[in-house]
Amino acid sequence: MNIQEIIGKKRDGKELSKEEISYFVSKYTDGTITDYQAAALIMAMYINGMNEEETTNLTLEMASSGDILDLSEISNNVIDKHSTGGVGDKITLILLPIIASLGIPVAKMSGRGLSYTGGTVDKLESIPGYRTQIDIRDFINNVKKIGISLIGQTTNLDPADKKMYALRDTINCVESIPLIVSSIMSKKIASGANKIVLDVTVGSGAFMKNKEDAIKLSKMMKKIGEMTERETICVLTNMDEPVGYAIGNTLEVIEVVECLKGNISEDIKEIITTIGSYIIKLSGKNDDLEENKKMILENIENGKAYNKFLELIENQGGDIEYIKCPEKFEKARYILPVIAEEDGYIQELNAEEIGRVSVMLGAGRMKEDDDIDKEVGIILNNKISDKVQKGDILGYVHANDEQKGIQAVEKMKNIYKISEMKIEKEKIILGIV
Amino acid sequence: MNIQEIIGKKRDGKELSKEEISYFVSKYTDGTITDYQAAALIMAMYINGMNEEETTNLTLEMASSGDILDLSEISNNVIDKHSTGGVGDKITLILLPIIASLGIPVAKMSGRGLSYTGGTVDKLESIPGYRTQIDIRDFINNVKKIGISLIGQTTNLDPADKKMYALRDTINCVESIPLIVSSIMSKKIASGANKIVLDVTVGSGAFMKNKEDAIKLSKMMKKIGEMTERETICVLTNMDEPVGYAIGNTLEVIEVVECLKGNISEDIKEIITTIGSYIIKLSGKNDDLEENKKMILENIENGKAYNKFLELIENQGGDIEYIKCPEKFEKARYILPVIAEEDGYIQELNAEEIGRVSVMLGAGRMKEDDDIDKEVGIILNNKISDKVQKGDILGYVHANDEQKGIQAVEKMKNIYKISEMKIEKEKIILGIV
Repeated sequence: MNIQEIIGKKRDGKELSKEEISYFVSKYTDGTITDYQAAALIMAMYINGMNEEETTNLTLEMASSGDILDLSEISNNVIDKHSTGGVGDKITLILLPIIASLGIPVAKMSGRGLSYTGGTVDKLESIPGYRTQIDIRDFINNVKKIGISLIGQTTNLDPADKKMYALRDTINCVESIPLIVSSIMSKKIASGANKIVLDVTVGSGAFMKNKEDAIKLSKMMKKIGEMTERETICVLTNMDEPVGYAIGNTLEVIEVVECLKGNISEDIKEIITTIGSYIIKLSGKNDDLEENKKMILENIENGKAYNKFLELIENQGGDIEYIKCPEKFEKARYILPVIAEEDGYIQELNAEEIGRVSVMLGAGRMKEDDDIDKEVGIILNNKISDKVQKGDILGYVHANDEQKGIQAVEKMKNIYKISEMKIEKEKIILGIV
Repeated sequence: MNIQEIIGKKRDGKELSKEEISYFVSKYTDGTITDYQAAALIMAMYINGMNEEETTNLTLEMASSGDILDLSEISNNVIDKHSTGGVGDKITLILLPIIASLGIPVAKMSGRGLSYTGGTVDKLESIPGYRTQIDIRDFINNVKKIGISLIGQTTNLDPADKKMYALRDTINCVESIPLIVSSIMSKKIASGANKIVLDVTVGSGAFMKNKEDAIKLSKMMKKIGEMTERETICVLTNMDEPVGYAIGNTLEVIEVVECLKGNISEDIKEIITTIGSYIIKLSGKNDDLEENKKMILENIENGKAYNKFLELIENQGGDIEYIKCPEKFEKARYILPVIAEEDGYIQELNAEEIGRVSVMLGAGRMKEDDDIDKEVGIILNNKISDKVQKGDILGYVHANDEQKGIQAVEKMKNIYKISEMKIEKEKIILGIV
């Protein structure tokens, strides 16, 4: 077997065998196969597609390219929640402390942001002292002790995905269903969960731009979940505009704290109650989804969720004074208003474009080794369907570089599409697969 | 413009603009675009194809990625002859001294062997002292002085093709018509010819395995020739079995000397008279192809071609004592016979497989920086349609490593397909485009 032959088969639209996929994954991970050979094969996979069997084999080979965690000592029912990525997507940080506060163990590894989407690890690291890189033993012990731990992926978790994902990003091969499926599901399998709830984002700020593709993606992930005996539920959520009102690392943490205190926007409320209700169901705690939604809102109101969040931060080394008093967070040097130039209703607020503005400000990274500016980002005052008047402040740009800030304000003005017609807000939850 | 966008367009089967192709060629040549990004784009080009306009633009951009030679001081009619590659293909070395002996100037740059096919430069370098890397000024002066110079490509001739060709080889993207067309024609355009005769090989030992593809390739090259005001003729030649009887560098030079002395096999005679007759026609010397064929054979018989070859070798610093007395060439350590194991007629003698055996012996290279063994290779005693008896010597393996030699003999036994049925030899010249 050699890589040229494997490339040739997929180039000609043929099916790759389990052995060929295994050869590719292991030899690419260990460096025998070069980046340019992998790039050629991935492009051929993108264009000619991969059938269910190939996608399943790719997923399993990627999962076993590194360590596979055993979390059985925590519970027989370890649940993982994962989002396919978005702009302003802070759902994990809000929802998982709530789940933990209901007595369901949460052991979750998250990723960093790449391209125009943010990452949970970057957000956590904007809390001074918070340690996202800890030993697996400590990770498990933390969950046993307080019921929750949120950390970054360990170095040797799914190394094949790390290499493939970085490569796909540079060769414009991200938006391929079999490649997205294998990337997500291999990480979920390797990280030890046996129940998986996936937040499949759909819209301008998501990798899946339309509902049909999102359903296809969801069905494929569900199938691989079943084949590997991991019950999987996909919740399709709208990502035409950013989630909530804050985009940027520190800014989103502050919004998370507000939500856990009960000051929660309608879209976030709908997403956390829906996804959360399925998590509670899969945990075996309670089957009734409506009751589950109530439990979630209750634990926000009674402060248990907020207290669990404080416990989590403290247990991971974070300074809870920042959470208790978010004014302590360092602020960006320039906070510039975005002013409405006409009267009307907001028609569009493209999430991907806002994500790109936030990256330009320094809130995200275009390359894996880029540094990020924790405090920069965007605060939205208004979202789609809101009525605004000329002169209203639509939002604020938080910048450390004045020129970039001014540029970001100009871009934001164009991103806010305002017209006279009143429009209905799209649904937030688009379906369950 | 950025490379991700360009990759995305070709990935989705869209047409690339002249500007996009230009951006890719220049930025890949200067190293801004990485090998893995180029690999992804080339794979997308391979699978989704390139139309005529794209192929023409790619060719012209590649041609102008480095120096474009001006040979107008040699003649208004500078003719180039090029083969799409084969096994035992020593036509350039035989034919061009004949052409020069007829008073038609020959200024030819050749390539090295890669994969299972040989290269003229490697063959020339097996003559002690012969300098294939000389200054362009000396190259032109040599042609003016003795009417012929054969050298290797200069470093800065079509650097885009050098990078792309090496990459295509490692990612199994060689056999694509638009990519072959642009690779060949860009080199021809850059090397200053204004009339081009192409030997388009077809069959097991060629990149074009069937006549239909060869015709498609030829038409495309002819079209690009016309568009760039370079009259182009393609001669389709059979490459199901090797050309002549020798495969390997020194061994082929010895066969070349024999041919120029008049001991010439039928296949080589047909190829050199056909291609040669078109070269003479394009040079403006004489339009009658049959008369041209006669001139070629005459200049072999009267010794003028052989003498021109000696003049060429001497003028490039080569030791002509080796040409005058080929026994002086160093021989391989082991010369092992390949014995027929049954009676019958030879049905098949797969040129690609023989090429691969010769590479295994060290006569060719699998990677660009591999060393080659000049003296190793294969001598065929019998070719397709020959009648043989059990115990006959079908040919000889020339090896410097005994184990490899024994392995090569075994492989050669299997490559010679013998059966009772008498078969007709295929035609050598398959068409003119």
